[in-house]
Formats: sequence, structure tokens, C-alpha cells
Amino acid sequence: MTQDKQVIIIGAGIAGLKAASQLYANGIKNCLVVEARDRLGGRLQTVSGYNCSKYDLGAAWHHDILMNGLFTEELELNKKCKDSESKRFVFDDNQPIFVDEERGRLDHDPEMILEFIDKEIDKYTELEFYQSLDVKDCSFHDIILKYLFERRDTLTDDQIRYSAQICRYLELWHGIGWKDMSAKGTYFDHQGRNALVTNFDSIIERISSSFPKEWIVLNTEVKTIERKGKIVVVKLNNGEEYTCEYTVVTVPQSVLELSTKDPNDITNTKGRIEFIPPLNARIQEAFRKMHFGGLGKVIFEFDACCWTKKGSRIFTLAHSKETFVNNVREAGSWDELIKKSESVNSTDKPKDLTCWDYPLLFVDLAKSTDVPTLVMLMQRPLSNYIESIGDDKQRIFEFFQPVLDKIMSTLDTESVINEMFGATTASNKIGPKLKNIMTTNWSIDPYSRGSYSTCFPEDDALEMIIAMSSGQDSRIRFAGEHTIMDGAGAVHGSWESGKREAAYISKNLYNK
Amino acid sequence: MTQDKQVIIIGAGIAGLKAASQLYANGIKNCLVVEARDRLGGRLQTVSGYNCSKYDLGAAWHHDILMNGLFTEELELNKKCKDSESKRFVFDDNQPIFVDEERGRLDHDPEMILEFIDKEIDKYTELEFYQSLDVKDCSFHDIILKYLFERRDTLTDDQIRYSAQICRYLELWHGIGWKDMSAKGTYFDHQGRNALVTNFDSIIERISSSFPKEWIVLNTEVKTIERKGKIVVVKLNNGEEYTCEYTVVTVPQSVLELSTKDPNDITNTKGRIEFIPPLNARIQEAFRKMHFGGLGKVIFEFDACCWTKKGSRIFTLAHSKETFVNNVREAGSWDELIKKSESVNSTDKPKDLTCWDYPLLFVDLAKSTDVPTLVMLMQRPLSNYIESIGDDKQRIFEFFQPVLDKIMSTLDTESVINEMFGATTASNKIGPKLKNIMTTNWSIDPYSRGSYSTCFPEDDALEMIIAMSSGQDSRIRFAGEHTIMDGAGAVHGSWESGKREAAYISKNLYNK
Repeated sequence: MTQDKQVIIIGAGIAGLKAASQLYANGIKNCLVVEARDRLGGRLQTVSGYNCSKYDLGAAWHHDILMNGLFTEELELNKKCKDSESKRFVFDDNQPIFVDEERGRLDHDPEMILEFIDKEIDKYTELEFYQSLDVKDCSFHDIILKYLFERRDTLTDDQIRYSAQICRYLELWHGIGWKDMSAKGTYFDHQGRNALVTNFDSIIERISSSFPKEWIVLNTEVKTIERKGKIVVVKLNNGEEYTCEYTVVTVPQSVLELSTKDPNDITNTKGRIEFIPPLNARIQEAFRKMHFGGLGKVIFEFDACCWTKKGSRIFTLAHSKETFVNNVREAGSWDELIKKSESVNSTDKPKDLTCWDYPLLFVDLAKSTDVPTLVMLMQRPLSNYIESIGDDKQRIFEFFQPVLDKIMSTLDTESVINEMFGATTASNKIGPKLKNIMTTNWSIDPYSRGSYSTCFPEDDALEMIIAMSSGQDSRIRFAGEHTIMDGAGAVHGSWESGKREAAYISKNLYNK
Repeated sequence: MTQDKQVIIIGAGIAGLKAASQLYANGIKNCLVVEARDRLGGRLQTVSGYNCSKYDLGAAWHHDILMNGLFTEELELNKKCKDSESKRFVFDDNQPIFVDEERGRLDHDPEMILEFIDKEIDKYTELEFYQSLDVKDCSFHDIILKYLFERRDTLTDDQIRYSAQICRYLELWHGIGWKDMSAKGTYFDHQGRNALVTNFDSIIERISSSFPKEWIVLNTEVKTIERKGKIVVVKLNNGEEYTCEYTVVTVPQSVLELSTKDPNDITNTKGRIEFIPPLNARIQEAFRKMHFGGLGKVIFEFDACCWTKKGSRIFTLAHSKETFVNNVREAGSWDELIKKSESVNSTDKPKDLTCWDYPLLFVDLAKSTDVPTLVMLMQRPLSNYIESIGDDKQRIFEFFQPVLDKIMSTLDTESVINEMFGATTASNKIGPKLKNIMTTNWSIDPYSRGSYSTCFPEDDALEMIIAMSSGQDSRIRFAGEHTIMDGAGAVHGSWESGKREAAYISKNLYNK
């Protein structure tokens, strides 16, 4: 039994929901939103922790608030909130605190002025790649070494040693390590401040209640999308078959990539959609020039805040080696320095990993929303490892305990006391009492397979964006964070792309 | 008696000296450098103060060190300096300290985060003017009001009140007040850090000793520059007359502007050069779209540093009015807000001026070079007023005393004690003892008439740069900070422009 729909939207993340909402507002009455998971929101996911505080496991901020249409809507709603409790977001930008295990705080150090060196590396990278069009991309790691090699006579030993580590805060923007990251694409401009959303569930609720609930089908995978003349045939894993005039595919880039591969070559084909005919050449090509990151989070919930609220962002530096400075000072060439630094670098083998092998970003919610919780952001490959052991809260605690203790001493309190699993502590102990740990599982979840799109060296985000926004053809369309330029990789970009496709389809349906 | 020269360079600032140096290196043996003042250096001027410390009254920094050819040369020389005493520059970039008379320190305030608002206004301004080509320029003052009006719902009262004042640190980059400043041109990118030069006299000495001393004539004005066929005739105010194949005019833009005017219309024609034929139409036109700033300095020398060295840059905010916040909150339109803010603004009449009417930047040399001196930067119109009373050190002290005392209390010490003119103080007094004040006179000096080129609203620096770098014709050339794009307004830009003209002339002389 084939049923007819005007539009089938695949994926009930913010792109799909916004597209549905907009189509309904435009008078389109017969749509279907197919979602593989048992919930709405996709990579927006609000969960409750100990004491019912809410956290976003996926995206958590409105970024680029000068250019963010979703934020503009929320700002209007926020004005109607009477008490501060019900505010829809808080501005939590703040001077980041840098913490090195050995040296302690390194932000605002009057001798090292690492913030200025970071800015100079940003400009150096820009000049390197934008003065001429044919400069070959390299990793962010390598461009930092190039800067240090070429500018070493303008830098102190401490600046050489620690600026290399400071710059790595960008790993927590891109969700990957510095050796995997495109030097060209690492630094980017922010279009205004950031606002921490409290929480994304209310936005998902608001958008999804603006069109008929019956449109949504959960727990259902799409198996094939077939273009037949003027019609698109969509087959689901529950055996149902639909025809529609348009479809909008909003699955993550990582899931869509499965469609470009032979299913026999993939270990886990869950979520794979078979396109008939296959995805067009431009799309296939774009996948060679775009990758997918693995930002993950670990949420540390405490019973109360006993630390000093010094800042909303605490960045812990990866361990650096003293020999690094000598390597930079003595290198005869950039290439030589790269080779040397490879030989002294720490292992990436999971079993040898420690919490000081990667830079980490801790968001102190006590500072911004009065919740005594640290939300830690981590990058791939660390996130893959941590998410793989995510259920073992004791092991996660032990892994991060050294870095947590260092942070707590920086914030004027004692070591963390483990009170998970109902344990209690002698009341004279004054350290923060850890009550619960939650870990994301984006890397394991077959419907996300990581976090969001990102550039490896020599990638070109523009090719993917053009391929995606052009669509598979006139009727098989795409939306999501990987399909749009302004707001790429962010919630508002995804939301705009849903609007974009709804506008395209509405126009075509009315012009028939 | 007419004498023949290959090249006559007018002005012995760094552009003229570099051009002469480069011409000599290229084998050109018969040049003249005509300088109106009794010294070399132009707007680079190193003087000695109390206890023989040296200060630069004009430019003082290598800016943009990633793209600064002069700095690259100095860096090589610096490596040969054995002890730190003889270092040719120091990196003195530092987090600026913001001081408000009423509220005290406002930098790194965890609630106001004014540094982030400043960055947002930067981006807002960029988006405003660069999203479309036909947006009309306005003053920096007005664009800040536009930002505050449009984004007021994202800002706290304190952020509205103080971010408007914080942004005004840019007045000390451009040398003019925010109402005179082009919004389009206010924020600009830095190409790397800054290095404080110790001092520019050594650079002037180095360059001027690289060509024959006999080339230089001091205390001599150029009266006319006449193009006659393939020859340029240059007449001096001492009655001498020269012919040359090329001339490079490096007088400041402010002095060159006199040439575009009827001498009968000018109060003080000192330094005016008569061009025969007159400056070409493109140059005349460019003067309508470019202006000249008035950065000035007051140097406060103390007997010793008794304050805490918290940072090398202390920025004191102009007074703000509480009513300003209400004006922003209640305005019905941007225009209305501009009109209201005009009616509450403080006077510009010199007699009513106080030291809290303008933002000021104090460079603490105690922090960067161990000299117990504050170098204060001021902008026009304040600088015009202060320079006009510059000889009256007592009056200058009294004018700035409140702001100095506020700074000293911020830096953990007591009020300033006036020990100028040989006065001494009871030894139990612990405030810093002021020994001497020095004030620039760039606005009064007829050979500078201000500081350096800057953009008023609707100006276009590019037209001046193109007109100047194209020259009056093939033989009458220009160099200086106002004639070049990279390094415009800065020492290294001026230096590069001298190189540029020397290269042009050398090539033409050899290809004859």
C-alpha cells in the first residue's frame, strides 16, 4: 500500500522540524517527518541529571548572535519572561582561565601574554594562506610549528612552550585534535557573542508544536529513496512505502556518507539510506573534501558549589615537554621541527592515555546558571575512547580525577570527593562532592557517528555546502548543519537550512 | 647659479632618509635631502628628559611585526645585542587596564565583560558596512549608538553605559575624537604584535649614516617645484636653485595640503610648496576624502616607581552620564538617540575642558623599560588645547592631576606630589614624586600640523594612497605614511614608501 505525501522530511533534528514548521505555515498540509530515534531533536538533546538539573548533551549555545535568526526569535520570547528563572538563555562569554598542571594559571600572565601570541598565530595563519591562493594546507599542529620556527626570535622560551598548547582550545570548537585539523580552517570569525541556551528542549518543543503532531513518525528508518520521474518513492524499514513530490534529507553528514559506500564495505550499516539512482557525482566528490568531528561531553555534577566562581570557561592544557623549546630553537627548518616533534609526542593508544594528553574545556555552570556542575568538552580521538567506556562512571571519574583536582585547587578548594552511587562523606571534608557523571555517546550512536562536520587538512567545506544546497536533484533536497555557509556546524545554520528548503519547496509546489 | 642633482628628496623623515639610503645603495651618487627643521627624523623625534631617560615624542612602536620590514631588520640587529640594556625594542603588549573615575577598574569585569562587547561592536561595524557596498558611512560615535539601540535587549545597563566609553580607546590609535572618526575605518586588523622602540634615534642614525652626510641640508624650506620638460626645478628659501631628474616629496599630508590652496587663504603659509603646474586633479580630489589627525603626548616623569606595575597600558575612560542608559533604552529610533545624545554631551570649549572629558591612554614605562614615567597619549581636539599651553608645566599638571591621582590609587599608591622646578617633599610622603613634564607640539609645529593621516566619515584612504603612489607625474614623486596601503599611518609604511620610490627612480635612471 503506497501512500501519497507532498513532502517527506527525513530526520527530526532542528533542520527537519524547522522545515516542517515552515511548510505548514506556508499552507502545505500533507507531510511526513521520519525519525530513526525514539525522540525529537537529533543532535540537540536535553537530559536531566542529579537533582533534576537540565543539560544539553549536544549543542548548547546560540553562537554568532549578531547573525543568528533563531536567537533573534528567542530574544523576543525572552523579553516576555517575567522572572530571571524562566530566561531562555544566559550570556556566558568570559575570559577563559588557562590551567597547566605544573605551572598553574597561565591566562593573563603579564610576562607570557599568551592571549596576544594566540592572536598573532591567528593572523600569521591568515597571512600564510590568504596572501596567495596556491599555498598548500597543512595541519593546525604543523602551522603552529611553522610560526614558532619562523618567529622564534620574537618569543621567549615560555611563550614557545605554552602558546603551542594554548592555541589548542580550538580543538574544542572543531571536535578533533590539532593534527587532524585543517590549518586554513582552524581560526574563524565569530559574528557576535555566545548565549548558553536553558535549554534546547524548549526550542525543540516550540518548533515541533507548530505543525501537526501526526506528521511525526519516530523509531523508523528510511531504507531507500528512489527518484521515479516526477515522484520520489521513500521506503521505510517498517515496510511502509510513500510517494512524495519532495523529500528533505536532514540526516547528519556522517550518516549520509554511508550512502556513498557499498554496504558490504561498512561494518555497521545502521541508518544507511540507499539512493536510487546513487548520490550524484558532485556530492560523492564533496565527501572526499569534508570530514566529521567528534566533540563529546562529560558532565560532572556536584552536590553544591564550594569553589570560587572565577570564570565560566576553564581550559586545561595538555602536558608539554621542556625539550620542545630546544627543538624549536635548534631546528634548521620547519620540516626538521615537524619530524622532531613527532618523535617526542605522546601516544594516542587508548590504554596509555591520561587526562593530561589532551586539552580540555570545562564550562562552569555554577558561574553562569548557579548549577554546581562542570560540563567538560572533549575532542576526538579522546572522545571516542571516553564514550566507549561511558557507562563505567567510576572509571571515567578515575580518568579525569587529576585534572578535576587541579581545577579545584585553582578555584580555591580541595580535591573532589567521590559520592557517586549513594556514598557519603565525613562532614568535615570540604572538597566538592561528586554526585553523578553523564557522558555523551555521539560517536557510538549510529544515527550521529560523531558530532558535526569539520575540515581536515586540504578539505574544502564549500564543495560540500554547494553540493548539499544544490540537492541530489530538483526533488531530493538536503538540510542540516553541513549544508549551509552562514552558521555551518551550528544550530542556527541547521535551522536556516530547514527554512531554505521549505521556501524552495513551497515556491515550487505553488508554481506547479 | 643652478646646480644639477639626480634626485632631490624633500623631507628628512624616515621616508626621505630611507629613499636616500636606498638610492645610494643602488649607485646613485648625486642627491640632495632638503629638510626644513634643524634635525633629522621628522615625526620621529627622540628627546631626553629628567635623568637622561629617552622618549619618543612622535611614533614610538614597531606595529604589525608580522609584516614590518623595518622591524625585521631591527630584529636581526637585536640578536647581536649582548646585554638586555642595549636591546633595540621591547614587546610591551599587555591587557589594557580600564579605569573609570567613579567605578574604578572596568577591565576583566566578570559581569560586564566589556572586552567582549568591544569585539562585538567591531564585528557589528564590519557587518554593517561590508554586507552591502552602498551603506553610508557615519561617525564612530553614531555607529556605537546604532549598535546600542539595536542590540539593547542583549545588554545590561552597565554594558550600555560603559561599552560606549571603552570603545573609545580607538581615539588614541587615530588621534581624533569619536565624532570625527569614520565608522568604517575605526576598527582595523593588526598584523601581529607591537614592539616599543628604544629609541627611534638609533634607527634614524643608522639609516642616515648609510649615505653621504653632505647630501643633507637642514633648516631649509622648499619654495617651488616646477616641472620643465624632462627636468624638475626646485627652488629653496635660501635662494638656491636646483635642477634634478626626479624629486621625492615626503612632507606630511597636512603640509602638502597647503599646496592645494591659495596662499592668500591660509593664515600660516610656513612650509607651503608651490607646485608649477599645480598638483594634479586626482591629488586635489583625494584631499577632499582624507584628513589629518592630532595625536599628542604628555610625558610625566617621576623620581622613582612607587606604584604596582599592573600593566603597560592604562586607559582612563571619559565621564559617562547615567541618563545615557535611559536614552538608549527609551529611544524610538537611532536618529532620535543621536539627537538626544548630542543635547547631553559635554562641551568642547577649551576653557570648560577637564581631564575626564576625553579617554586617555597612559603607557607605563616602569612596566616595560623600568623607567618611572607615564607617557600619556591624547587626541584632537584635546591635544590642540594641551599643546597650546605646553610650556606651562604647572598648568598641564593641574589639568591632569585628577586623572593621575586616580591612576595612582588604582596602582596601589598615593596622590602625585609635585616636585617640579626643584621643589622637594617631606620624606614621609609616599606618593609618586613628579619631576618633569614634557608635551609634544605637533599641532603647532608648521612642519607637521598634527600627527598623521586619518579618515573622517565618508573619507576614502584609498584615493589618497593611489593619488600619492602614482605621483604628481613621472618625475615628481611622493613618499610618507599617507602614500602607502600596508603600514598606512605607521613608521614601517613610511619606510616602505621610501624604498618604493627609490626603486622606481633607480630603475628609470638605469633604463635611460
